[in-house]
Amino acid sequence: MPILKLPGLIDPHVHLREPGAPHKETWDTGTAAALAGGFTCVLDMPNNTPPVVDATALSAKDRVAREHARCDYGFHLGANEENAADTAALAPYTVGLKMYLDQTFGPLKMEGLGALIAHARAWHPDHPLLCHAEGRTIAAAILAAHLAGRAIHICHVSRKDEIELIRAAKEQGIRVTCEVTPHHLFLTDADIPAIGPGRAEVRPRLATAADRDALRANLTIVDCFATDHAPHTLPEKDSENPPPGFPGLETALPLYLALVDAGLLTLNGLIERVVTNPRRIFGLPEQTETWVEVDTAAVWQVHGADLFTRARWSPFEGWTMRGGVTRVVLNGKDAFRDGTIVAAPGSGRNVRKSINEMSLRGAS
Amino acid sequence: MPILKLPGLIDPHVHLREPGAPHKETWDTGTAAALAGGFTCVLDMPNNTPPVVDATALSAKDRVAREHARCDYGFHLGANEENAADTAALAPYTVGLKMYLDQTFGPLKMEGLGALIAHARAWHPDHPLLCHAEGRTIAAAILAAHLAGRAIHICHVSRKDEIELIRAAKEQGIRVTCEVTPHHLFLTDADIPAIGPGRAEVRPRLATAADRDALRANLTIVDCFATDHAPHTLPEKDSENPPPGFPGLETALPLYLALVDAGLLTLNGLIERVVTNPRRIFGLPEQTETWVEVDTAAVWQVHGADLFTRARWSPFEGWTMRGGVTRVVLNGKDAFRDGTIVAAPGSGRNVRKSINEMSLRGAS
Repeated sequence: MPILKLPGLIDPHVHLREPGAPHKETWDTGTAAALAGGFTCVLDMPNNTPPVVDATALSAKDRVAREHARCDYGFHLGANEENAADTAALAPYTVGLKMYLDQTFGPLKMEGLGALIAHARAWHPDHPLLCHAEGRTIAAAILAAHLAGRAIHICHVSRKDEIELIRAAKEQGIRVTCEVTPHHLFLTDADIPAIGPGRAEVRPRLATAADRDALRANLTIVDCFATDHAPHTLPEKDSENPPPGFPGLETALPLYLALVDAGLLTLNGLIERVVTNPRRIFGLPEQTETWVEVDTAAVWQVHGADLFTRARWSPFEGWTMRGGVTRVVLNGKDAFRDGTIVAAPGSGRNVRKSINEMSLRGAS
Repeated sequence: MPILKLPGLIDPHVHLREPGAPHKETWDTGTAAALAGGFTCVLDMPNNTPPVVDATALSAKDRVAREHARCDYGFHLGANEENAADTAALAPYTVGLKMYLDQTFGPLKMEGLGALIAHARAWHPDHPLLCHAEGRTIAAAILAAHLAGRAIHICHVSRKDEIELIRAAKEQGIRVTCEVTPHHLFLTDADIPAIGPGRAEVRPRLATAADRDALRANLTIVDCFATDHAPHTLPEKDSENPPPGFPGLETALPLYLALVDAGLLTLNGLIERVVTNPRRIFGLPEQTETWVEVDTAAVWQVHGADLFTRARWSPFEGWTMRGGVTRVVLNGKDAFRDGTIVAAPGSGRNVRKSINEMSLRGAS
């Protein structure tokens, strides 16, 4: 059995849905899915219900994550039209400020130019600023950040025009980084009928084969891979008003390894995109005594019902994957082994300060 | 009678509607309005019916302008989703390439990032590129031009966020120029009820008093004044589906002079914005033996019915203006004198080569 040993993977973009929608995912089930997929650290997005845009909501998420997370984690703070002046105080407890500039799931979408500029200026230039932006909005976000003298991270780039724009910006020394998802690297709009129209809803949408090919052709300027793990239940996805989003934590690594097998990426290049670069971009501590063992010869079929995610479905249903995580060691202890989650809820650590610990200390 | 002598004014942004909609305006009536307003050169926009996006449409406009224009003129070419590869050949006959990136009058609006980038790259960096863009789209257009290594001109900037963004870009040495209209400098959304909701429709929309004040406070970075003279008939403006646009050529100069009277601008600063800068930005020839005489003490009331524009209305109806054009000399000849248009239709000159002359020469 050929075993590949990798550092613990970092997923800079997940939606663990708790608090607000624990029927879709919880910190318990979501971090179990992370470990099963080889991820030892996940950075969680702020579009919860209510959205994580202030200390109250951040504190509530911190409490539930602290009690239930099985792997390490960080929280992205949400930007909205009103909170630009208030985010700086929350920076020590968060891994980034997320701006939703285009259509997405949840109420966090910001309109117009003003709030974009206000956040680009107000958020400390040393703290990560990231955005959901598509098309021209990516160009607008890059300029706003550039004029504010700061870097920006573009989430889930999905289209040819976009990745080529980011390439051009990087080539001129503009401080922009980006991530792409496994689904935009492996699925296209041609897959929508087979997946089903509701299940295939995702933002950014599945794009064309030319877009997918352009992402693959520009991997040299893709800084991170990110699952954008965004679980919804099957009844929700099959409803008349299907919410956008795919679960992705448990299917990502074999797809990433397939890029290596295809010669599109070296193994070191993969490690940069799932460990080194996310750590650098989001300023994460190194995870010591932490690794993942992968049986690179293992062949398995994706069955949503077998997954740890509470969503229990996958857009890759029925796909044959090569490469199975056999063991995850986190902080010197077995966290996942031979199909079983070993890490207990609450064993995961916040990669930043806990806002609740700080409050307690402040009160003592 | 205190007479102020000015160089002939240049309006870099007018819609003379012919061919396509001569009931709104013609080259005859539109250039008569220009001369009555002190303008000796107008640059005409491409959103005719059909739009001026190719040699055929440009040739048709050239023919009618050549026969009927009473003042000098140039043509902006229209960008669309398909013609990026074909515009370069038309550059010698045009004064700029106009991209409609946000909602406007006519069918020329381009969606998405791809066409914006394609045009920014394909249009020669020495030829003027201009755009109708609002809000974030301005930021996107500036970045696209910057990455293509070229300048861009932003038409009719109307809001605080926008002018401040352009200021920030200029301060960082990015090659962007801009224009503002008299109506955005003098009217706000508070004027809409008095003007009437249909008549007040314009793109960009009339904005807030704070926006108007920000434009006035940032005149140092406004390169040009432009009327965006966009005539529609009163029945059209008072209809259930009023098209956006104001006539503006005959009311602009007194409003510009009012900015000087208010101490917001020097007279030299005004001349820069209506003569020197438009000439430089759009690469126009100097108009020799050409000047305008203004009775700076003349006080008159705006009555749409008295105007030369075929639209025969004004959003400034009933306003008391100070400053009246008494004489316009163009190319050594009287073109307007004491209320009468003297210049004959066809006496105006194309500031570029004529596409039709070129064809004739090519055929000889």
